[in-house]
Amino acid sequence: MSTLELLSEHACFGGVQRFYRHASMATGTPMQFGVFLPPQALEAGAKVPVLFYLAGLTCTEETFAIKAGAQQHAARLGLAIVTPDTSPRGTDVPGQADSWDFGVGAGFYLDATEAPWSTNWRMETYVTEELHQLVGHHLPVDLSHAGIFGHSMGGHGALTLALRHPGQYRSLSALAPICHPTDCPWGEKAFTGYLGASRAAWEAHDATALMGQSPTVPYPDGILIDQGLADKFLPTQLYPEAFEMACRTRGQPLTLRRHAGYDHGYYFIQSVVADHLAHHARTLRADRAPLAD
Amino acid sequence: MSTLELLSEHACFGGVQRFYRHASMATGTPMQFGVFLPPQALEAGAKVPVLFYLAGLTCTEETFAIKAGAQQHAARLGLAIVTPDTSPRGTDVPGQADSWDFGVGAGFYLDATEAPWSTNWRMETYVTEELHQLVGHHLPVDLSHAGIFGHSMGGHGALTLALRHPGQYRSLSALAPICHPTDCPWGEKAFTGYLGASRAAWEAHDATALMGQSPTVPYPDGILIDQGLADKFLPTQLYPEAFEMACRTRGQPLTLRRHAGYDHGYYFIQSVVADHLAHHARTLRADRAPLAD
Repeated sequence: MSTLELLSEHACFGGVQRFYRHASMATGTPMQFGVFLPPQALEAGAKVPVLFYLAGLTCTEETFAIKAGAQQHAARLGLAIVTPDTSPRGTDVPGQADSWDFGVGAGFYLDATEAPWSTNWRMETYVTEELHQLVGHHLPVDLSHAGIFGHSMGGHGALTLALRHPGQYRSLSALAPICHPTDCPWGEKAFTGYLGASRAAWEAHDATALMGQSPTVPYPDGILIDQGLADKFLPTQLYPEAFEMACRTRGQPLTLRRHAGYDHGYYFIQSVVADHLAHHARTLRADRAPLAD
Repeated sequence: MSTLELLSEHACFGGVQRFYRHASMATGTPMQFGVFLPPQALEAGAKVPVLFYLAGLTCTEETFAIKAGAQQHAARLGLAIVTPDTSPRGTDVPGQADSWDFGVGAGFYLDATEAPWSTNWRMETYVTEELHQLVGHHLPVDLSHAGIFGHSMGGHGALTLALRHPGQYRSLSALAPICHPTDCPWGEKAFTGYLGASRAAWEAHDATALMGQSPTVPYPDGILIDQGLADKFLPTQLYPEAFEMACRTRGQPLTLRRHAGYDHGYYFIQSVVADHLAHHARTLRADRAPLAD
């Protein structure tokens, strides 16, 4: 188990926003992540439910912490929020920074199988195994009450990691997620580079395909997705209607809210993030004592 | 009156976050600013109270809009928020970007009298006259109900501009402001460069000196200041206790809240910004109909 190096710590809404660095076995690089611990987590012996938030293309572990305004709600609801980075950084893989939608800042939350990416670009193992265990070991969080959500590429990550790791995340939501990457330019580029030319391999990382093949109803409490209708990526990259159809086919409850006028960015996210945290809290805190208000 | 070029527009909490550029007569450069218009401002014929927020060293017109999480409260309270940039940019003044605490990103909200800064570094005229009139002309805001607040260098700006322009801003608050710049390294450097060596000229831009000389009680409803006690700049740059003493001497009501554990950054600001907007709304909306909740 790696040790954590505390990079910075900031009091926030009675809790604390921290940033850590550690050596990653999964990626073979140093990795950084953020964590917000609510006031309830700072009490002696406490362990609080934990949300993993996966960010989108070009983002880092800081983006959500700085821009989303989620800490106030996490403080009120007694939820920790862990924010990983979006890819390995600092490798010597040629071309890693040539594109904003592939390589650095664009790990797509999968383990690459194609050289030269397969050595370091192992974000699925990083998020679902290494980082998961690391925060459970070092921080006052309760891994038996974990949820996952994310934005855009990170919405793809949240949906696919939740569906590929049944039982690991009890609650699930997404903001403007890439819902059907096997059929959009971002997904086709990333999957070709990381997974090779065979489309059969791609389907195992496509939320719509995974939901369509799900043998169970994985989230009987429901999945929440918010989507802005002025999002410039909606027509060509996101396809929430494909995921909606797959959920309907399998009987998976889905609340897909479409918001007129809202775009793809964090001004949209800050406008709806309270509802996402409340969605997760309903499941993750269901068997806990009510919080004092 | 300049025209405004709309750079971007983002739906946010039922209102809209916009960024504009315009040619500035005051600075002789293009200037950019942000504005949040709450839902109430988007109704036909509406004009809403307006807050001017002045940012700190190295910040831009985007910083507060991205990091403070204030839009949700402005939307609820029916307040517009205007966020100017912190200096002119793009001049050919030698050495303008050599320091992070002088020149670009460090205008200190005054009109420089010393060459070469006096041509462009005229942020007091820019904020209190040109930008003020510009937003009143082009946007649905009510300049007879304006307030001002700011952070660090911008807290200095808010306090000094409010005290130097009686009646222009009905409400006043500050976050970790530079309260006594004639006696701290940031202020001494900036005032020497912008105003010259004579300390007599400096006092006209020092909040503590201005308050100590105030012939009236300028804010009978009170001034709100929040200060983190883990702020690394508190011991050497900020001196809220000097301003507190000046307020006490003049009978100016001041609520100075000291917060254990909080630092100088936006994780602190987001934790207290709701109280600042509520402080301004109490004065700026006092003679208006209550908002529907």
